[in-house]
Amino acid sequence: MRRHLFELPDDVVYLCGNSLGALPRSVPPRMARVLQEEWGQDIVAGWNTAGWTDLSASIARRIAPLIGVQPQDMVVGDSTSVTLFKTMVAAARLRPDRRVLVVEPTTFPTDGYVAAGVARTLGLELRWCDPADPAASLDDDVALLSLTHVDFRSGAMFDVDAVTAAAHAAGTVVIWDLCHTAGAVPVDLTAADADLAVGCTYKYLNGGPGSPAFVWVAPRHQEVLDQPITGWWGHARPFDMTLDFEPAPGAQRMVVGTPPVLALSALDAALEVFDGVDPQELRTASLALTDLFIEQVESRTTGFELITPRDHARRGSQVAFRHPDAYGVVQALIARGVVGDFRSPDVARFGFAPLYVTPDDVVTAVDRLVAVLAADEHRAPAYRTRNAVT
Amino acid sequence: MRRHLFELPDDVVYLCGNSLGALPRSVPPRMARVLQEEWGQDIVAGWNTAGWTDLSASIARRIAPLIGVQPQDMVVGDSTSVTLFKTMVAAARLRPDRRVLVVEPTTFPTDGYVAAGVARTLGLELRWCDPADPAASLDDDVALLSLTHVDFRSGAMFDVDAVTAAAHAAGTVVIWDLCHTAGAVPVDLTAADADLAVGCTYKYLNGGPGSPAFVWVAPRHQEVLDQPITGWWGHARPFDMTLDFEPAPGAQRMVVGTPPVLALSALDAALEVFDGVDPQELRTASLALTDLFIEQVESRTTGFELITPRDHARRGSQVAFRHPDAYGVVQALIARGVVGDFRSPDVARFGFAPLYVTPDDVVTAVDRLVAVLAADEHRAPAYRTRNAVT
Repeated sequence: MRRHLFELPDDVVYLCGNSLGALPRSVPPRMARVLQEEWGQDIVAGWNTAGWTDLSASIARRIAPLIGVQPQDMVVGDSTSVTLFKTMVAAARLRPDRRVLVVEPTTFPTDGYVAAGVARTLGLELRWCDPADPAASLDDDVALLSLTHVDFRSGAMFDVDAVTAAAHAAGTVVIWDLCHTAGAVPVDLTAADADLAVGCTYKYLNGGPGSPAFVWVAPRHQEVLDQPITGWWGHARPFDMTLDFEPAPGAQRMVVGTPPVLALSALDAALEVFDGVDPQELRTASLALTDLFIEQVESRTTGFELITPRDHARRGSQVAFRHPDAYGVVQALIARGVVGDFRSPDVARFGFAPLYVTPDDVVTAVDRLVAVLAADEHRAPAYRTRNAVT
Repeated sequence: MRRHLFELPDDVVYLCGNSLGALPRSVPPRMARVLQEEWGQDIVAGWNTAGWTDLSASIARRIAPLIGVQPQDMVVGDSTSVTLFKTMVAAARLRPDRRVLVVEPTTFPTDGYVAAGVARTLGLELRWCDPADPAASLDDDVALLSLTHVDFRSGAMFDVDAVTAAAHAAGTVVIWDLCHTAGAVPVDLTAADADLAVGCTYKYLNGGPGSPAFVWVAPRHQEVLDQPITGWWGHARPFDMTLDFEPAPGAQRMVVGTPPVLALSALDAALEVFDGVDPQELRTASLALTDLFIEQVESRTTGFELITPRDHARRGSQVAFRHPDAYGVVQALIARGVVGDFRSPDVARFGFAPLYVTPDDVVTAVDRLVAVLAADEHRAPAYRTRNAVT
């Protein structure tokens, strides 16, 4: 859709934007300006002159339409894992009479690790649900259900509306992890009556390696929300420098420390590529790409078992196949300029960022895959130890 | 000492490096390379090719000599406030049988706010100590004493050795907040037998606005340290993607999420200005600057009450004066190109970054202060509402 807005190396088909998005051309000039003019010339006055304190709001304005929320209900700043921690604690505290947190075992590992840390810190129990039916694990002792909307490995997608409704019927608060969603798969959190959401910005949002995460809080929860990391930037009046903490009104109380200005500036510039994009057009383009890739792989090769749902309603923006030589396939493709990635034990995973991956890319990728298989490149000795299934 | 390594605006005397350090000239070219070559060309392969996972260690190697520790015992990544949170929880857990956290009421506000959040989350009691004698607040129920080594307002400095020894005598763990220390005042945490330390990198370490904080852990605590935000980057083998969290060996377990590569790259480049610097030379230069500033202000003006200790052993790298028109003085100085800052209610604060502030700067600053006072510029109507003491 907008490939010209991205810097991409020549002759590379980049199908790993679900891990790290490509560089938007808007980022380097903005960063040069932030360094040389804002920091270099204004130094500490930059806090007043350069809009550094408004970066989170600017970013929120650009992400909000992609996930169906109002920008004032979202903040940006810490890593995804830190953001999950403070959000999970805050969510659990919304149900102080309940003792269980539920997560799915197929979630991205950090979600489970953080949930375990939260459970231990708050004296709660961690319960693993069946990803095929998370609602079955809910009962009147479950405070929080935290789910990754699009599975990082398979690309399978939950139904936000249905799961949220089932959780609410059980009196449970839901956190949606939108790491593999935002920027490729539109969601409407407002229509779903969602509670809280967290998302990574360095995948389909192209914020750069390790860019800060966002958190969204439904307006109805904001004034009672009680997050544990009460840093000065979440204070109602940080520059009064009073002794006691008083949470800022609204979603601002989810902020912790001084904003990471360089990272936020890069992210804000990166998000310019979404300006004026209709989220539904993103979805249409993404599904066309994943449909085409599945069709091409299945019609032109053998040995690949699709683990991504064929049903559009259950598919994110990536395609994953099991293959006995998955590691070798991924490595041999990389050697031919097709970048996907491998997930243990036998999954080859390909992400389709609809803004810069084209249908021609998909065909080129499968052309090269066919060539890899024909030449047996995926079984090169160098790859053998990592090919999990022999 | 090394002013030529910094970008500083013409005709400005910058005495606010204790709030935000100036831009090292090494940062913009490094950032351009990280964006265009590492991220832009290698994209996700940058994690393997560009050394992104080694940035924290590289930064640690540059900071470690300034605070008297070994680099492998330090990590960098989250905001100062988040770092304080995880470190305070981990420290409190070293003394599970004790119920009290002690902080001083003159600490930078976020330290107190975070401590209150930690106390509430862990069900502990927060106790405020007398900054003149923190040890007096210790007893056998105090798990943790968290102190800001150099006071952000007055520039007064604790004796690391004596306070640490007193705390240990009471069985208490100490966290040293080195936000206003690192890069200007050398400390020897190893010689002091210190436990844990946290520090900001955007003040005297010049990492840029909101750059990530460091945390240091004494080797004796590392293998039992239990921090609450168990993200995947603190796992022993993050890419195994196992279901259960297993903390990484050593200080690495203090890491939480994916490293913020852009921010870490800027910081790593910024720290090049310290390469080969003798920490004691920094201290000598800093004391010469603050001595000269105190002498010049006191001999050439009236109405300023020094609140920074005259005793070198108790002075950090800044000088603060009370003045009834402190707000107006600071604003009028800024209008004349001398950048300090105001702290409520009546404090004018000036930081002396020994790498780029020169003795000539000090004399120029006081020349301009004399001119401000002579012309009554500090009593301009625009400043009157903020001049706290009338």
